[in-house]
Amino acid sequence: MACAIKVYLPQDSYEVAISSGYLDVLGEKTSTLGLGKKILLVSNPTVFGHYGERAINSLKSADFDVASCILPDGEQYKNLESLQKIYDAALENRIERSSTMVALGGGVIGDMTGFAAATWLRGIKFVQVPTTLLAMVDAAIGGKTGVNHPQGKNLIGAFHQPQLVLIDPQVLETLPDREFSAGMAEVIKYGIIWDRELFDRMEECDRLDRISAITPDLIEYILNHSCQSKADVVSKDEKEAGLRAILNYGHTIGHAVESLTGYSVVNHGEAVAIGMVAAGKIAVELGMWNPEEAQRQDRLIEKANLPTKLPAGIDIEGIIAALQTDKKVKAGKVRFILPTSIGKVEITDRVTSEVIRRILEQM
Amino acid sequence: MACAIKVYLPQDSYEVAISSGYLDVLGEKTSTLGLGKKILLVSNPTVFGHYGERAINSLKSADFDVASCILPDGEQYKNLESLQKIYDAALENRIERSSTMVALGGGVIGDMTGFAAATWLRGIKFVQVPTTLLAMVDAAIGGKTGVNHPQGKNLIGAFHQPQLVLIDPQVLETLPDREFSAGMAEVIKYGIIWDRELFDRMEECDRLDRISAITPDLIEYILNHSCQSKADVVSKDEKEAGLRAILNYGHTIGHAVESLTGYSVVNHGEAVAIGMVAAGKIAVELGMWNPEEAQRQDRLIEKANLPTKLPAGIDIEGIIAALQTDKKVKAGKVRFILPTSIGKVEITDRVTSEVIRRILEQM
Ligand SMILES: NC(=O)c1ccc[n+]([C@@H]2O[C@H](COP(=O)([O-])OP(=O)(O)OC[C@H]3O[C@@H](n4cnc5c(N)ncnc54)[C@H](O)[C@@H]3O)[C@@H](O)[C@H]2O)c1
Ligand SMILES: NC(=O)c1ccc[n+]([C@@H]2O[C@H](COP(=O)([O-])OP(=O)(O)OC[C@H]3O[C@@H](n4cnc5c(N)ncnc54)[C@H](O)[C@@H]3O)[C@@H](O)[C@H]2O)c1
Ligand SMILES: [Zn+2]
Ligand SMILES: [Zn+2]
Repeated sequence: MACAIKVYLPQDSYEVAISSGYLDVLGEKTSTLGLGKKILLVSNPTVFGHYGERAINSLKSADFDVASCILPDGEQYKNLESLQKIYDAALENRIERSSTMVALGGGVIGDMTGFAAATWLRGIKFVQVPTTLLAMVDAAIGGKTGVNHPQGKNLIGAFHQPQLVLIDPQVLETLPDREFSAGMAEVIKYGIIWDRELFDRMEECDRLDRISAITPDLIEYILNHSCQSKADVVSKDEKEAGLRAILNYGHTIGHAVESLTGYSVVNHGEAVAIGMVAAGKIAVELGMWNPEEAQRQDRLIEKANLPTKLPAGIDIEGIIAALQTDKKVKAGKVRFILPTSIGKVEITDRVTSEVIRRILEQM
Repeated sequence: MACAIKVYLPQDSYEVAISSGYLDVLGEKTSTLGLGKKILLVSNPTVFGHYGERAINSLKSADFDVASCILPDGEQYKNLESLQKIYDAALENRIERSSTMVALGGGVIGDMTGFAAATWLRGIKFVQVPTTLLAMVDAAIGGKTGVNHPQGKNLIGAFHQPQLVLIDPQVLETLPDREFSAGMAEVIKYGIIWDRELFDRMEECDRLDRISAITPDLIEYILNHSCQSKADVVSKDEKEAGLRAILNYGHTIGHAVESLTGYSVVNHGEAVAIGMVAAGKIAVELGMWNPEEAQRQDRLIEKANLPTKLPAGIDIEGIIAALQTDKKVKAGKVRFILPTSIGKVEITDRVTSEVIRRILEQM
């Protein structure tokens, strides 16, 4: 079963196409977009080793002229230096206004390729082929692109929408389990903030901690509903005026946990999981959410093999201080996204430091 | 007399404000834009030495919190390394989404600052304070921003419109004459492609080769009409779909001359002057333009102390070959912008290499 989700934007609507085996139709799908013949495919050695040949063969058999640029693997290479390498490859391969960049990889490759496409010749087209669960359900959709500054994540970037997001669930088979679980955190987030049906369907499942434990039908369902959730939110708020803030559910405390643990002990998804548990407890404490639903959330998080407790020894006052420097602070008040029922959240700034402290101390 | 020209764009309309002494009202003007308190002013030592203090004082007295970033002077520094320096300064001075960048300088500073603003935190606001004639009438208006790749000019960039372009004609007094003349080439271009009245008014003037030879009234008139011409064209075609191509009048052969002489013997304005003379002769040769008007154009170019002949020893076949690699080539046909009367041009691809060769050989 192939799914096609439409992301509606005033200027650049595009499709998120999801189906098992789609890597082999990348060329065919891309050729329907009316782009030029030249393609620069950007990837890293890990992903390219698994899927580079199939992607290139598919593009070539659709008559594209394909060059590739392979960047080192890792968040630490999501920087201006790697960007320069994409530009060098673009120059060397005479990438023109009508040419296209294709990102084959996780969020790191997707964000950098999108930014290179946004800025090469003041903007050329690009296609996302996300290969991690996180990139499929989150990073590849919505047009945020960029690189890190040595002193801060994603400080340099642009909004630039892809022409197509092509998702082949099969590629998840080679993804390490921990990366899979990390992506699951965002999936669970969509269940809480937007899509109760997605939440319910995941609850029926015994395990969510590895791709091999999930039926092909369910993974397509999950991808379809998650991408649809993100597409819904982004279509309604392309450039972060308001609604898009709900995508930060679990991220407020999550970011603080990530930064306090030096972005190494817990990964992004794990931090978001912890953040969702905390936000859930806060919502219950404030009488906004009923405790049974909060427990259901936490059980789902456990089923995905994600943490529900703070890392041992973390400095709770440090978390509270970090919240104050968060980008979401408005006039000194931390804004929280809190559930009111599964599938629905509210944004509030009436969470005091005392409440946060009390909740974190229980975790 | 203060002029305010409006650049109309679907999303980001803005004003080009022109008046003698305006440097001292930069703060006041900027404070009407409803921006945050923090400003990062970007300049180079030459311009900052002349005007930095006045600009900063004006901003400070309007209650802005101003940091500055001074980059080395010269086109060779219009690169990713300088961009990195702007980002570093932005980080160090905690430039946020609500903060503003101000470009104080010629086109080099303006292009880089605009690009930094386009990409810092995925886009913050910026103000252009152009200090060369070229930047006033051309580079600062229209939203093209970017840096060079070591192997090609302006290959990396973005469209990003300023919130305000503030022009103080007085700052031209310190501009070297050769730079002034270079800007005049673009002014004459507007006369030919768009604004016959501007052309006529300049003809009445004895000299156009230095600011001291021109009355304050005339320079304001020239700036006003030139900026209005660019604003008209850009408003009608923000992202280069069609009409904007006429701004390349004189640039087709001009770019070839620049690249063949290694961007050193002739500067951009001089190359454009040569290109306009050549385009004029081609138009006459094809019977599209009457020879008297072409001569009037050439005389105006001479009055601005700009060249009307090819640099000695230049390789004409090299020019013709270079035209083939120009970005404006569509399906092997070079597109020329040719005058049909003063104030009006047409775009045509029916100029053969033979005609080009014949004309260039006469020059
Ligand atoms: N643009 C956005 O809206 C957005 C949203 C969320 C996250 N992000 C960004 O995404 C990045 C994180 O993305 P990520 O979690 O995908 O990390 P990632 O891109 O680093 O990928 C994680 C690891 O998995 C490997 N990998 C990828 N696909 C594989 C596959 N199919 N088989 C085997 N290995 C595979 C990668 O090589 C890498 O080592 C961060 O930089 C974050 O800022 C962006
Ligand atoms: N964005 C656009 O649409 C656009 C259009 C045309 C040109 N450009 C770009 O603009 C650049 C050329 O701009 P430019 O001609 O202004 O060159 P520039 O910025 O290098 O300035 C020329 C010289 O004049 C000095 N200077 C500037 N103002 C002065 C003043 N008031 N007094 C004394 N000295 C002064 C500068 O320090 C520099 O040495 C190129 O990089 C070109 O690509 C951009
Ligand atoms: Zn996230
Ligand atoms: Zn020019």
